[in-house]
Amino acid sequence: MAKQYLLTPGPTPVPVDIQAEMAKPIIHHRTKQYLEIFASVNEGMKKVFKTTQDVLTFTSSGTGAMEASVVNTLSKGDTALVVRGGKFGERFAEICKAYGVNVIAMDIPWGTAPDPKAIAQSLESNKDIKAVFVSLCETSTATVYDIKSIGEVVAKTPAILVVDAISGLGADDLKMDEWHVDATVCGSQKGLMIPPGLAFIAFSKKAWDLAEKSTLPKFYFNAKKYKKALEKSDCPFTPAITLVIGLKMALAKIQEEGVDNYIARHRKNAEFVRAACAKMGLEVYSKSPSFAVTAVKLPATVDGGALIKTCVEKGVRFADGQDTLKGKIVRIAHMGGIGRADLEEALKVLESTLNEMK
Amino acid sequence: MAKQYLLTPGPTPVPVDIQAEMAKPIIHHRTKQYLEIFASVNEGMKKVFKTTQDVLTFTSSGTGAMEASVVNTLSKGDTALVVRGGKFGERFAEICKAYGVNVIAMDIPWGTAPDPKAIAQSLESNKDIKAVFVSLCETSTATVYDIKSIGEVVAKTPAILVVDAISGLGADDLKMDEWHVDATVCGSQKGLMIPPGLAFIAFSKKAWDLAEKSTLPKFYFNAKKYKKALEKSDCPFTPAITLVIGLKMALAKIQEEGVDNYIARHRKNAEFVRAACAKMGLEVYSKSPSFAVTAVKLPATVDGGALIKTCVEKGVRFADGQDTLKGKIVRIAHMGGIGRADLEEALKVLESTLNEMK
Repeated sequence: MAKQYLLTPGPTPVPVDIQAEMAKPIIHHRTKQYLEIFASVNEGMKKVFKTTQDVLTFTSSGTGAMEASVVNTLSKGDTALVVRGGKFGERFAEICKAYGVNVIAMDIPWGTAPDPKAIAQSLESNKDIKAVFVSLCETSTATVYDIKSIGEVVAKTPAILVVDAISGLGADDLKMDEWHVDATVCGSQKGLMIPPGLAFIAFSKKAWDLAEKSTLPKFYFNAKKYKKALEKSDCPFTPAITLVIGLKMALAKIQEEGVDNYIARHRKNAEFVRAACAKMGLEVYSKSPSFAVTAVKLPATVDGGALIKTCVEKGVRFADGQDTLKGKIVRIAHMGGIGRADLEEALKVLESTLNEMK
Repeated sequence: MAKQYLLTPGPTPVPVDIQAEMAKPIIHHRTKQYLEIFASVNEGMKKVFKTTQDVLTFTSSGTGAMEASVVNTLSKGDTALVVRGGKFGERFAEICKAYGVNVIAMDIPWGTAPDPKAIAQSLESNKDIKAVFVSLCETSTATVYDIKSIGEVVAKTPAILVVDAISGLGADDLKMDEWHVDATVCGSQKGLMIPPGLAFIAFSKKAWDLAEKSTLPKFYFNAKKYKKALEKSDCPFTPAITLVIGLKMALAKIQEEGVDNYIARHRKNAEFVRAACAKMGLEVYSKSPSFAVTAVKLPATVDGGALIKTCVEKGVRFADGQDTLKGKIVRIAHMGGIGRADLEEALKVLESTLNEMK
């Protein structure tokens, strides 16, 4: 069977040496060997997050860490500003509502990034906003948000800035400490090159201070338990051992390349994909395109679902649009373990399929 | 380096063919291929749970599914009866308290199983008990509870019976439907032969009815979302794909052997370990020993911590006691991928080490 190329924005392909590392005999998590691995992962994650704060590791999908960002910082009846420019902004709002947090929704057109000035105005007119929820890369529209400018705005207020960096981290730059981000949420299966199953969160001092006052109920996602256990390089509950072992190797790769070089390589991949798509006459969908994933508009005559199906038959899997974008865009991931040759092969298949369908 | 034998009650060794299966190129979770795998896992899990109900799969450690059993069935101010005979009974109580559920604790001596009559009496004198929380195997003391008799008692009341079968399932028999269990909680890294990272829950109709009235906040562990997604063999959030793929193979192995033969083999392993320990003069700690793991008392002159350390140096890892049992017992797991030859080797090492230390 021919090689299958996976170009979806999560999961992304896992490098074979990481797969092999995870396939070694399992070890116990309360051993010196494992605790050293876990300590090294925490240090490695700090470099990717660009923070001096601890990075807490949950065994869950990214949504679990999104929930952790809400339940550890807020209390019932608190007010949150949630930017909704796609599926994942919507999810933050749903989590807030599930926990009785009042949501001020800032709905922006899909494919656009929020205007930091609009966030400033909302904070100015709603002094009771405790937290602002945004994405680094809104995966559903392949749009990167200007976190640096939003951070400057939020830092001037008592509110915390929570950033869903699940699909962007490692591809789109995020300087957590320098940009005044108070909570960064991440997942394992995108820019970090390992399978899904781990989620991460780091809190600034401002967020930890808010955590002291938070009364929302929590147990499995109680950040304080994880922070306390981390003092001994431990985890309060049995972790997904094999994934943490894979992550250690992935972080070693990223550090060997250098975090900024890793990000720069994503930028080059993104530019390569966009140039190739432009040659095919495909327009980029987002007004603020991410370096993790590119969404391109399809000609009105082409059925996106059929296009993706045909590409799969040819060995390449892209992602469809979601909700109203279903069938209208194609999302091409170029992050994590996706290499240049994978992209070249995938774009060839995209072009030939488009030509057949036109 | 010599082979390391892992005889801890989670994680347990992962068979090499399952490791290899999980090391194959990762696939996307919204594909026909994956949805078929996930549907097959649900069917296989029903057979292990001995239920006709759906088995929901969370990406989390077992504690996540314990939390799910609380937040999906109860409301703030509800009363729960929690049997505390070890670390994991205590955890149920902590989760209830974190969510504002009143706990009536039934504290029993460690190493004993609860008396079903005492549970009946408690239910009789506290008519507002909404749920009874017990373990199948309380791992910290290697004690199996009489779920069948407890089920008969609870079934006569409006309360639901929640069973933590995280470490027992597959080793200690549990007939969910026949024994009137309303919520069964399980984890992946014990009797199911795969690494940690997945947790499971199945609800009876009685529990689903209670779920309709439950007002505790939840999002990631919202069982209704998982049940709805399962109608299309899907999962609401990105699952730990590689672990689910491993689980499919593990379940195929269990089905090939037959669930009851699999359980019977655990019983034989347990009897083998106990007979060997008796020959060494080691008394079984529990008054109601489990078939998943055996705890034996150490002579007062032997430091358990030192014994375990020496065994590790000889290539065999047992588990120490927890809390007040630390250093006083040794726990020998004999479940999942632990084979007879592993046990023989481990017991030889235990005996030689004991003789050196006496």
